[in-house]
Amino acid sequence: MKRAACHGLLPLFVRAVSTAAKVPTYDRRDGDNFLALSRTRTAEWWHDGRMSRVTCDLTISLDGFVAGPNQSLADPLGEGGELLHRWQFEEPESNTDALKGILAAGAYIMGRNMFAGPGRWDEDWRGWWGEEPPYHAPVFVLTHHPRKPLEMQGGTTFNFVTDGIESALTQARAAAGNKDVAIAGGAQAARQYLSAGLIDELRLHIAPIVLGAGERLLEGVTNLNLEPTEVSGTRLVTHVRYRVIR
Amino acid sequence: MKRAACHGLLPLFVRAVSTAAKVPTYDRRDGDNFLALSRTRTAEWWHDGRMSRVTCDLTISLDGFVAGPNQSLADPLGEGGELLHRWQFEEPESNTDALKGILAAGAYIMGRNMFAGPGRWDEDWRGWWGEEPPYHAPVFVLTHHPRKPLEMQGGTTFNFVTDGIESALTQARAAAGNKDVAIAGGAQAARQYLSAGLIDELRLHIAPIVLGAGERLLEGVTNLNLEPTEVSGTRLVTHVRYRVIR
Repeated sequence: MKRAACHGLLPLFVRAVSTAAKVPTYDRRDGDNFLALSRTRTAEWWHDGRMSRVTCDLTISLDGFVAGPNQSLADPLGEGGELLHRWQFEEPESNTDALKGILAAGAYIMGRNMFAGPGRWDEDWRGWWGEEPPYHAPVFVLTHHPRKPLEMQGGTTFNFVTDGIESALTQARAAAGNKDVAIAGGAQAARQYLSAGLIDELRLHIAPIVLGAGERLLEGVTNLNLEPTEVSGTRLVTHVRYRVIR
Repeated sequence: MKRAACHGLLPLFVRAVSTAAKVPTYDRRDGDNFLALSRTRTAEWWHDGRMSRVTCDLTISLDGFVAGPNQSLADPLGEGGELLHRWQFEEPESNTDALKGILAAGAYIMGRNMFAGPGRWDEDWRGWWGEEPPYHAPVFVLTHHPRKPLEMQGGTTFNFVTDGIESALTQARAAAGNKDVAIAGGAQAARQYLSAGLIDELRLHIAPIVLGAGERLLEGVTNLNLEPTEVSGTRLVTHVRYRVIR
């Protein structure tokens, strides 16, 4: 698609998820590194399966950045930012469950920049995600610019929401039924939902790198009470699931 | 001891370590929370037991702070900073190995502020740690002010090093024999050793809290290549052991 090359990681991400779904291998030898994904459950999960939760998956650096410095359309993750996602691209089969979890929701909410660049719509262009986005579910895009829903192949429909994050959540909940609603990113949307107390589970994927500068996930987010419920990881990532305590 | 009350957490820390050493219980029920400390090893540890490593244990918030804002002698961890250490004080028996690891070295190095407040020595005062500090080994204190070694009860001797971090490390290595050398803190000393490439293993204890401001562990530390080798945790902390790759 037009401009799709700007978001070079997305096809890789789709491939990673697709590979992970097919290869449920939890342990392997990789040279001298033993990659294990046994889990440590640190608190009983309260979810009883009856209620849709609001989840949010984000990959951050050890110093808390979701993107490196100097983000641009050509370099949406900023300098060094692509290193955050090595775990997805280099070892999808060791991170099967984390990758599947990212795409397990019944509806998604994303910031405008996750769908396309800023400004008024170029309606000839149907977003970063190509004709068959990996969501296979309704996606609600937060924007100031109205646009008609965009039906893609494979069950994904992009709906454009101009009246705020709570409206988007109400619509996403209705669309998700019994499944979860996922805040798909970016960091600004995640911060807005975290600050509003609207996220039930934050799943951080902590990459063992130091970016030094860029966009911080938790900048300005206060009054956040979290409880780790599960930790796991590989040599490229530490997965921590946090329940948000209210 | 004089002024010892200023560092109110230290007696608690000593008690926590002491409790942990006596109660090797890995799992317990705490209301609805199941606290487990089974481990996920994510990479083979290269340590073959023949060589002394340099380790560093630090507790940080989810947004990367080792202390909250407005640190002072009366409030050395800053506002909210004491919440970082709940895992040590409230559930020592669930964090036995992490606590024991902090005090397993054959020699320790600490910044001046970990031993006493700033400025010239008041030689009548023998530091925050009381007459029997928990180290039971030689401790090398980084300072600009010379002072004769201070022998305490239980095998701890404070040695004051005025000629820099490499000199302190050379002396600590000689004192540790086959055991590890631990950089005991604070964050400034840890940053200096990390930036100089002198730490082999960084053990982060990530508390599930957001401090929003304060002293950041990794501020200004670049060129740091890390590999997680083990993750574990409870509902109050996520332990990650990182090998520093050179």
